[in-house]
Amino acid sequence: MVGAGQLARMTHPAAVALGVGFRVLAESPTASAALVVPDSPVGRCTDPQAVAAFAAGCDVLTFDHEHVPGALLRGLEEAGTLVRPGARALAHAQDKLRMRAELTAAGVPCPRWTAVRDRDGLEGFGREAGFPLVLKTPRGGYDGRGVMIVNKADEAGDRFDRLRAGDPAPDGTAPALLAEELVAFDRELAVLVARSPSGQAAAWPVVQTVQADGMCREVVAPAPGLDPALAGAATSAALRIAAHLDVVGVLAVEAFEVTGPDGTRSVLVNELAMRPHNSGHWTIDGAVTSQFEQHLRAVLDLPLGSTLARQPWSVMVNVLGGGHPDLYRSYLHVMARDPGVKVHLYGKEVRPGRKIGHVTVCGEDLQDCRDRARHAADFITGSIDS
Amino acid sequence: MVGAGQLARMTHPAAVALGVGFRVLAESPTASAALVVPDSPVGRCTDPQAVAAFAAGCDVLTFDHEHVPGALLRGLEEAGTLVRPGARALAHAQDKLRMRAELTAAGVPCPRWTAVRDRDGLEGFGREAGFPLVLKTPRGGYDGRGVMIVNKADEAGDRFDRLRAGDPAPDGTAPALLAEELVAFDRELAVLVARSPSGQAAAWPVVQTVQADGMCREVVAPAPGLDPALAGAATSAALRIAAHLDVVGVLAVEAFEVTGPDGTRSVLVNELAMRPHNSGHWTIDGAVTSQFEQHLRAVLDLPLGSTLARQPWSVMVNVLGGGHPDLYRSYLHVMARDPGVKVHLYGKEVRPGRKIGHVTVCGEDLQDCRDRARHAADFITGSIDS
Repeated sequence: MVGAGQLARMTHPAAVALGVGFRVLAESPTASAALVVPDSPVGRCTDPQAVAAFAAGCDVLTFDHEHVPGALLRGLEEAGTLVRPGARALAHAQDKLRMRAELTAAGVPCPRWTAVRDRDGLEGFGREAGFPLVLKTPRGGYDGRGVMIVNKADEAGDRFDRLRAGDPAPDGTAPALLAEELVAFDRELAVLVARSPSGQAAAWPVVQTVQADGMCREVVAPAPGLDPALAGAATSAALRIAAHLDVVGVLAVEAFEVTGPDGTRSVLVNELAMRPHNSGHWTIDGAVTSQFEQHLRAVLDLPLGSTLARQPWSVMVNVLGGGHPDLYRSYLHVMARDPGVKVHLYGKEVRPGRKIGHVTVCGEDLQDCRDRARHAADFITGSIDS
Repeated sequence: MVGAGQLARMTHPAAVALGVGFRVLAESPTASAALVVPDSPVGRCTDPQAVAAFAAGCDVLTFDHEHVPGALLRGLEEAGTLVRPGARALAHAQDKLRMRAELTAAGVPCPRWTAVRDRDGLEGFGREAGFPLVLKTPRGGYDGRGVMIVNKADEAGDRFDRLRAGDPAPDGTAPALLAEELVAFDRELAVLVARSPSGQAAAWPVVQTVQADGMCREVVAPAPGLDPALAGAATSAALRIAAHLDVVGVLAVEAFEVTGPDGTRSVLVNELAMRPHNSGHWTIDGAVTSQFEQHLRAVLDLPLGSTLARQPWSVMVNVLGGGHPDLYRSYLHVMARDPGVKVHLYGKEVRPGRKIGHVTVCGEDLQDCRDRARHAADFITGSIDS
């Protein structure tokens, strides 16, 4: 696995149980996964030699992020490395404009969107879709980075300046930003599926995600009160996307649930991630097969595991770094207060607002699970002290 | 953790989630846990210098087996190392005669037993308790090694010869074997508890174990149809043993369920293990807190986690090595046939009869779980092929 963040860290236990060899190409010797995976050479994911040397020791190459350059991946594939998901599939997770074009071509419902290259283009799209709208940098953003809300075309001025100063798009077209309508959604959902090279696919229950500051804060599995027909439609769309883009491994589809003028509910696809995803962390404790085990099974072309939930409800809340670098006292308190909460820490240095872990509570009563998970996360973060 | 077998291997994922540093003193660089734990120096557990050097890099020392000599452990404690469980507690798991004496003193029901030093002693005990009886080497046995069934006193002859040729007991008394009545049990049970240095204790549901050739083959959690009063008595006895012996960490109490002449059922304690134990592997998939996480919590004096089962039934079956060194095809088959089975492999070379992994199936229907778990284990072992 290229990248040694928390996703690679949480993949290691799955590899231990499956009995498969697992190594990571780490961005630093103290990266989250490098602390727990024995074979963790240090190298940059943008360095073709470092990645090729790492790949030479692996049967299959996979990723804990989308930041490996497409040209590098294509080069590896040409040299015979099994890259899963492949470079063609990953290009859609790496470039939001390409993703939008492909999803639209495949008939997947998306927010209204267009590629804009300058202020006038944005102004024109704004007249059509309405301001405020969302402006996204197609490449390199995550956790809300590279995303801005624009109330009028003039606010985006320096974005276009920076765009013109940057590299051209990989396909040689003039660089562009992605403009999207600001969707007045009822709530956010995520659909997690996995797909094998042989085409086998599996989907976990659709979850509700709660975002704050562009970052996932809470996930409830399954999404409470979701119309089964809508859950089915969302799951079908995610499986269709996985097949259409030839995804191998876990695919997370982030979506908006919206109510139309006639009261009909529907789902619009927002973002894709072709790797284990924050919206699937609940599966470690709450599902028969975790997303991390499933990702390994898929990229190794092993048969996929059951995606059934073990308990009626699972609530996952991210733990963000707070003002106190020492977690120990709050960690003790949370464990003592609630023996049923599952605390997962990533071994990362505490910095305010940084994802340093998550907690999951599973059970029969949604409100109880949610209250307990939120309390534990807030207490470890330090935003509450009782 | 001293020792790098499968118990240490399965402890690592728990350490990863808890965010605590975990290292093992490995018997070899290819030992089960050494393959997956980054910091695994190689050294013999009987070598005082190797163990002391390892301990110097740890806050707390714990074990995946009982083979570290007591004198070595006492030396470490005198030098200020936190050894958990401590040398005094471990002495009871290391010496079955001492264990029997202590349990009897604490009023814990045990099979009839005595220390025998020669043929005449055995003959005398046999007249009282009846032949056949069980003769055990007090130290160093596991998985049925060091245990023999004796139909008459003459059969044990060379055992006493070897006894006299060996070392005296640590307390300076003449060496002895442990003779026990052969209990006509209804079934075997195991009680798994954990205890902290601060005295907090927790117990998982009592399980039924099925042994073959002295080795655990199958565990059903909870023990089907067990009288709740008997389950309570067995759990109380295990907690009393943990407190009485000052155990820190996981304690497994193996026991016999027996029916007396008057039809009353009761439980007799057979063996103790002061570490995570085969009878608790089901907790990885079936309980809120696994025995491995709990052992770490206990030895680190963190608050203990919930021992509740996540699903009504869990069945764990050990996978033994069979005639085929290559597991891959059967592994694929089992995963494809049953996406709900959890396969855990230990990274060990396949040798006939060796524990190389286990499978667990959790669910609502006991028979279904048992059939599926047995089939998966037998298929991987190679004893069935369809």
